[in-house]
Amino acid sequence: MVEVSKPLNLGAIRAAHERIRPHIHRTPMLTSERLDEASSASLFFKCENFQKVGAFKARGATNAVFSLDESAARRGVATHSSGNHGAAVARAAKLRGIPAHIVMPSNSAKVKIRAVESYGAQIVFCEPTEEAREKTCAEVIKKTGVTLIHSFENEYVMAGQGTAALELVEDIPSLDVVMCPVGGGGLLCGTAVAAKSLQPKIKVIAVEPANADDAAQSFRAGRRLVTEKKFTIADGLRTNVGEPNFAIIQRYVDDIVTASEEAIVSAMRTIWETMKIVVEPSAAVPYAAIVENKIVIEGKRVGIILTGGNVDLDALPWNL
Amino acid sequence: MVEVSKPLNLGAIRAAHERIRPHIHRTPMLTSERLDEASSASLFFKCENFQKVGAFKARGATNAVFSLDESAARRGVATHSSGNHGAAVARAAKLRGIPAHIVMPSNSAKVKIRAVESYGAQIVFCEPTEEAREKTCAEVIKKTGVTLIHSFENEYVMAGQGTAALELVEDIPSLDVVMCPVGGGGLLCGTAVAAKSLQPKIKVIAVEPANADDAAQSFRAGRRLVTEKKFTIADGLRTNVGEPNFAIIQRYVDDIVTASEEAIVSAMRTIWETMKIVVEPSAAVPYAAIVENKIVIEGKRVGIILTGGNVDLDALPWNL
Repeated sequence: MVEVSKPLNLGAIRAAHERIRPHIHRTPMLTSERLDEASSASLFFKCENFQKVGAFKARGATNAVFSLDESAARRGVATHSSGNHGAAVARAAKLRGIPAHIVMPSNSAKVKIRAVESYGAQIVFCEPTEEAREKTCAEVIKKTGVTLIHSFENEYVMAGQGTAALELVEDIPSLDVVMCPVGGGGLLCGTAVAAKSLQPKIKVIAVEPANADDAAQSFRAGRRLVTEKKFTIADGLRTNVGEPNFAIIQRYVDDIVTASEEAIVSAMRTIWETMKIVVEPSAAVPYAAIVENKIVIEGKRVGIILTGGNVDLDALPWNL
Repeated sequence: MVEVSKPLNLGAIRAAHERIRPHIHRTPMLTSERLDEASSASLFFKCENFQKVGAFKARGATNAVFSLDESAARRGVATHSSGNHGAAVARAAKLRGIPAHIVMPSNSAKVKIRAVESYGAQIVFCEPTEEAREKTCAEVIKKTGVTLIHSFENEYVMAGQGTAALELVEDIPSLDVVMCPVGGGGLLCGTAVAAKSLQPKIKVIAVEPANADDAAQSFRAGRRLVTEKKFTIADGLRTNVGEPNFAIIQRYVDDIVTASEEAIVSAMRTIWETMKIVVEPSAAVPYAAIVENKIVIEGKRVGIILTGGNVDLDALPWNL
């Protein structure tokens, strides 16, 4: 098994950065005068849509797979994922030359299924429920003896995801705020620990779709709540925040706010039209919260992690 | 009037670069391992979709507007354009604080009309024919005494457009080939003169939609032919190549090839999905020719100018 009790700290994130450096992009930062004007702030967009597999998930999965000892690695890895994490684990396993089993819900986007296939992983389809995903994945692991690479409840994954914020804070001096979306909390934990360790005065603000706001509710309640989810276009963020993740979030995150579905779609479109880049709905969630005035950033320097760019071009949300 | 008899040479392009530098982006270059593998070459994409007004046209228009003497400038400028050049002239005029009149066909894309409006220019709508555009623009000029900034038959515009290739050749050493689309020929002339002057062995290859192939036909015939156009999704390239442009093309360009409509749409989609950037159909035309094996680039280092990213997201070609 991957060790999950290692502390998540700046040392772990720096080690992850060294480990994954040959296999990932140091992604560029983009700015937009128009979006700066519209928000009365200076926005720095960290373009993880340009990352390998089209999402930040390449960072955490690569760190976890390359942290396995030789004998565990030889047996292989498994995970369940509707999308980017599955592709990221499949790619990392291919790079290390080990088997990967990816459990995917049967209604996964075609573009995401093709991505996993392209890395030569074994796909196991299951019913599109969280329960079926976990059960099917547990069965695969029992049968094959491979190691689970959980998409967020895993310290190596969190440390890997934190390398995006590490680069962001290194590249853009004196940021006041760092923003990212929150689903299971893997990216948020890595981001918060990296940013606060490097620059203690920085504010870390997470954003969640209002239709899947368990993390925001839990943050206010001071305890982890598992809530009923409504549909959200930001499909990467439907997940409940993880248990180890929530403990880290309580310690390091300054606030969790929400964005409406309308604002997410509109923010996504604005980013495409203004910045000429393809981002997926989940990636637009932080900017949506800015547009909805959910946080005060006037005059501030704000780093925003654009998490990914894997979109089904046949089903864009403004055409639905 | 803008002086059109000045020679187009490297000096003019370097002077243009100095003149427009405060007003334009030095755009980034992107590469893609997947597209390199698919084409068995090294492709360097010059991202003019990230340019001001979303297209390389900002370069030429800014150079022409800022080259006007004071008294001509005070009177103002006019042009006719269905899109990016109009926005570019409007923006340049606003930067210089002078009036701009933009003649646009009545069926212009909304996104392009909004862009021109956002720079405070006076829009004059006309019937959607080349003839009506020229006639209306001539009337505006007669009435107001402003200076025409033609979108390609203008040496200052050509010199400005050439600054993209200047940056490309400066940034990427030992390119074997430079590719760009050809419509009126403003970009192609600037590109060819810049690239050949800096690196005489470089091959300059232009690509045209097969449905609007007057430049390719003219190039083979050795004289400028005005041909009947069929519909092309690459609306920026419907124009006939200009007279002064064709003379320069004959001297500096190595070949003009064509791309089919299917290949253009497919190449555009591939660029969006693989590179996660928004490019307009015209920008995808060179890569379409590569996919269709219209030129031999195996093992070569190829610079490609991605000309723009202004797309109507409600009417994407794969949804039509």
